Amino acid sequence: MTSEHQSGTLIIIGGAEDKEQDCRVLREFVRHAGGVKARIAVLTAATTMPGEVADEYIEVFHRLGAEDVRIVHTESARDTEDADNIATIEQSTGIFFTGGDQQRLVDMLADTPLHKAVRQQYASGSTIAGTSAGAAMMPDMMIVEGDAQTHPRPEIVKMGPGLAFLPDVIIDQHFAQRGRLGRLLAALVIEPSVLGLGIDENTAVVVESDEFSVIGSGAVTVVDETASTHNNLDQLLKDEALAVFGIALHILPEGYRFNLKQRQPIAPDG
Amino acid sequence: MTSEHQSGTLIIIGGAEDKEQDCRVLREFVRHAGGVKARIAVLTAATTMPGEVADEYIEVFHRLGAEDVRIVHTESARDTEDADNIATIEQSTGIFFTGGDQQRLVDMLADTPLHKAVRQQYASGSTIAGTSAGAAMMPDMMIVEGDAQTHPRPEIVKMGPGLAFLPDVIIDQHFAQRGRLGRLLAALVIEPSVLGLGIDENTAVVVESDEFSVIGSGAVTVVDETASTHNNLDQLLKDEALAVFGIALHILPEGYRFNLKQRQPIAPDG
Repeated sequence: MTSEHQSGTLIIIGGAEDKEQDCRVLREFVRHAGGVKARIAVLTAATTMPGEVADEYIEVFHRLGAEDVRIVHTESARDTEDADNIATIEQSTGIFFTGGDQQRLVDMLADTPLHKAVRQQYASGSTIAGTSAGAAMMPDMMIVEGDAQTHPRPEIVKMGPGLAFLPDVIIDQHFAQRGRLGRLLAALVIEPSVLGLGIDENTAVVVESDEFSVIGSGAVTVVDETASTHNNLDQLLKDEALAVFGIALHILPEGYRFNLKQRQPIAPDG
Repeated sequence: MTSEHQSGTLIIIGGAEDKEQDCRVLREFVRHAGGVKARIAVLTAATTMPGEVADEYIEVFHRLGAEDVRIVHTESARDTEDADNIATIEQSTGIFFTGGDQQRLVDMLADTPLHKAVRQQYASGSTIAGTSAGAAMMPDMMIVEGDAQTHPRPEIVKMGPGLAFLPDVIIDQHFAQRGRLGRLLAALVIEPSVLGLGIDENTAVVVESDEFSVIGSGAVTVVDETASTHNNLDQLLKDEALAVFGIALHILPEGYRFNLKQRQPIAPDG
């Protein structure tokens, strides 16, 4: 399944978003989902502790003023076809994917009636958010897992299909905090022509139409390998180190925007 | 003191170079210093454990075939003027700066007779190597200390003068292993017009004239902010996040070279 034109908003969060202080990122999600009138569905498919994780988000979304918060647990394939679950999605104005394991999330949801319902909500203008594993799965292709804090080489990253809400990008989350430049670069050499978005913790991109804006306390590192003039992928033996020339990097904190079609960053006064 | 044209070789090591297996990086240092006929001086100014660190390097340099290995400890200012120490430097063909704390190293050595003797050896064609703190101090300006694994902002990095063997660069060491992209970017925004070299562990740049080549198991990340079209440094309040557009990044593993004047990477067959 590939992404098509969508008309809702995506909020893609680099993990560890603040839930205690000003809740900058989650507040923005609730605002986009309709504010105090938001009808929020929380999907826990990524986590092995769905109850605990759900309780935390119910509490914070209530605290931010959203009264209607419902949980969609998916512990078996049957849950992804369950009429009540589908109805919860269909009635929602904002859908939130928790963190956990992105492969677990995709294995459970991909191409199920529940996935289709989420896509339909997005196409109809709902806000879809995901944090950490829930961020990783947003593109067509995702980083399933990978080594951090090492130089880029093909072995360190395992790629797989995502849930395809946002085409032509690869997301990496907890970006600065876990030293993930190497694995994002490796992913981009394996998947040329897409754009890399390294999203820091407590930081998010808010995607609307062809642009995203950045919110939160960290930065988004945009890694554009499409103008790269050289790499050595074809010549590498196992465990050999990758070479890449001419990657363009943009560091974008809150208030900055980026045009995904033109691949151009935009300053706040731009 | 600013760097002038030099005629020796610099070997700048990202720390944690292999001392047990093939010793790729240290072997190259010994080779450049004259092989089995090398006269090696090890400077321990950076470390608070000079005896232990010196013993380790004596052992490995002997194992690699260099018989003449002498230690220059500098525990007080007097040691930096000591005639025997100066003579050891003057008779050496290769000088090796150990790791430790780069500020300690610079505080002890900068502008002393010992420093001048090392510079004179370098100008006369000797090989000067440094690892970790001994790498950080190679440029005119160095990263004294800084936070890793966070997004770039001016507060996270403290800059200071280095020992000025290589102009127009800033070195960061343990680069991928400690997630230091953010702090190198911050340093480069503070010191515009210089080039950033992020050197991984067990990896080194071998600088001769205007070019360096890469050796070792990791990669060198060249960060070129000089073509950057925008940053927000002038507008930042304390702890606010840095924005930078249009940084050029090159990832260079062993066999790759880089022209420091033209700021151009060179492939092995290039």
